[in-house]
Amino acid sequence: MTHRLRGPVRIVGAGLLGSSIGLALRGLGVEVQLDDVSPSAVRLAADYGAGRPADAADEPSLVVVCVPPDVTVEVAARELAAHRSAVVIDVASVKAPILAGLTEAGADVARYLGTHPMAGRERSGALAGRADLFVGRPWVIAAHDAISYERGSLVDDLILDLGAIPIEMDPDEHDRSVATVSHAPQLVSSLVAGRLEHAADEALRLAGAGVRDVTRIAASDPGLWVQILSANAPAVAEQLRALRGDLDVVLAALDEVDAAGSRRALADALVAGNAGVDRLPGKHGQRSRFTRIAVRVDDRPGQLARLLTDIGDAGVNMEDVRLEHAEGARFGVAEILIVPEHEPRLHEALSARGWTVVS
Amino acid sequence: MTHRLRGPVRIVGAGLLGSSIGLALRGLGVEVQLDDVSPSAVRLAADYGAGRPADAADEPSLVVVCVPPDVTVEVAARELAAHRSAVVIDVASVKAPILAGLTEAGADVARYLGTHPMAGRERSGALAGRADLFVGRPWVIAAHDAISYERGSLVDDLILDLGAIPIEMDPDEHDRSVATVSHAPQLVSSLVAGRLEHAADEALRLAGAGVRDVTRIAASDPGLWVQILSANAPAVAEQLRALRGDLDVVLAALDEVDAAGSRRALADALVAGNAGVDRLPGKHGQRSRFTRIAVRVDDRPGQLARLLTDIGDAGVNMEDVRLEHAEGARFGVAEILIVPEHEPRLHEALSARGWTVVS
Repeated sequence: MTHRLRGPVRIVGAGLLGSSIGLALRGLGVEVQLDDVSPSAVRLAADYGAGRPADAADEPSLVVVCVPPDVTVEVAARELAAHRSAVVIDVASVKAPILAGLTEAGADVARYLGTHPMAGRERSGALAGRADLFVGRPWVIAAHDAISYERGSLVDDLILDLGAIPIEMDPDEHDRSVATVSHAPQLVSSLVAGRLEHAADEALRLAGAGVRDVTRIAASDPGLWVQILSANAPAVAEQLRALRGDLDVVLAALDEVDAAGSRRALADALVAGNAGVDRLPGKHGQRSRFTRIAVRVDDRPGQLARLLTDIGDAGVNMEDVRLEHAEGARFGVAEILIVPEHEPRLHEALSARGWTVVS
Repeated sequence: MTHRLRGPVRIVGAGLLGSSIGLALRGLGVEVQLDDVSPSAVRLAADYGAGRPADAADEPSLVVVCVPPDVTVEVAARELAAHRSAVVIDVASVKAPILAGLTEAGADVARYLGTHPMAGRERSGALAGRADLFVGRPWVIAAHDAISYERGSLVDDLILDLGAIPIEMDPDEHDRSVATVSHAPQLVSSLVAGRLEHAADEALRLAGAGVRDVTRIAASDPGLWVQILSANAPAVAEQLRALRGDLDVVLAALDEVDAAGSRRALADALVAGNAGVDRLPGKHGQRSRFTRIAVRVDDRPGQLARLLTDIGDAGVNMEDVRLEHAEGARFGVAEILIVPEHEPRLHEALSARGWTVVS
């Protein structure tokens, strides 16, 4: 296999990210040395093919620190001291506090670069590791002035070898960005879901797809998120404070809903929301470009497959598909997103094959 | 076709809900009389088979008012006065203010019942109408003491004939319930999305599936939502004020993140969010009961159908499926939700057929 990166690569922390990086590099033929506070985690990751257990005599050219955010500074500082010819990077989801912590600890930051792969899974640990976890995903490089171009390019090589897309930004910009698009939305989703904890049973019977979407990520792991939010507290607080300002405006409008300007204030908030959704990248963020077709499907194996086969046979490429089930119903609805030009053809093809297009 | 309801039924407002009710009743052989402030809307709905244009001599037994929330009181009062032997219902998404408005106007509320079908579409108007729009969906009956059991049972008949599930609650309970599970989440989703309107381009490049889920309903129609939120302003404000209280707690914790109790406060909010999600009905709300399998699919017609056919052939019933596309990637990932017992079998079957299970 061809690859850019010259090893050996030392990986500290044999969890999901560490073992996934190890699996990918081993697949390319790069030497990987694994370390972890847990010897059994190292053995497990090694058994899965993510590398070999590290040895005291190892001389890595690159060290990748894949430990939880609250011990990243300590571990990265130790690695910089122990491997004086290696570049050391980390993969934690905040960047400025780690660079600041290393600088404060007197670590040799001329050999350190913070990075953040925008990839993850709902499961953790080496067993969940996958060599292609990073393929096609953004991977932030939190650039700073103290590191040379040559050392930094080693990190580009790693990211490109793993199939990810390198995105350079400075550490503060990274932390503000993830606060905006990830950390603040996570906390707001948790707060909305938290209001449902003690809501009346009757209210929950009326819940539809909207509130399910808004609260889906509120099912995330609290332990991990306390670490992430704590590490990025100032940037998350800044986002949430701005949101509270917006909330106060709509609350004032709702309290005096018949006063002049109140409905305009509500409309402004809703219109700004439309504009924000339209700025999200990817197909999901641009739903308005697509036409939605809803088809009734029975709740048994193979039904949805049959539907999608019929859609493929009609020569129509789906942009998205989602299943919705109503409480107590014997069937669900498949929502299909397609380009508008294909709608008449698809309607005709599905009706001809006996499907009920419900909207 | 057998049906419970005796007509004729007069429908005022030939938009999405009115024409859908008309189409369903005509399909059952019930006489439907259509009225609308727009004569062309009546003709269009009639052309589509939702009923016949109303006549001055009509004597309906049931009048269904399907007009926007801010004119519902006025229209329902006029219908109660014009058709003195008919039961009059409406379908607006708030209930207490309408009953109060009718009582205040001196209308004969002994013949009025407020209802709210929990069904809708992203499109509006008669062209979007479907006879099975209500099948399997909850339909709230906002019961009150002034109407007799006999008159009320006419409304049960309508709801059951349309295939919906009648749920009885009092008007205030309904309004609080929809504020909790629909109106407040809608506004919060719009506020989160609104923060993205002027966010840096770099930040948006890092957006993933989480923020897309949270902000999906922020793409809704502002005009309709201003009416809904205005009509239910006190209940929505009560929900949002409680949410602001929760937000203040996490903001205080973020501002003093190393103080005693701060991490606990963040954890409490995240754990409450977990608990709230678990209370949502339907399969989406109980994702934790299922195992998620992610499979790489190329971005061409027929690929997902082939995958789902293979899943069906393995005898595995999917609980949910979603497609994710990364920006700039040539392929996407299909997330499949299944019962945990089926995971080993499905992994084996998919690998045997050449699929790449990426997580």
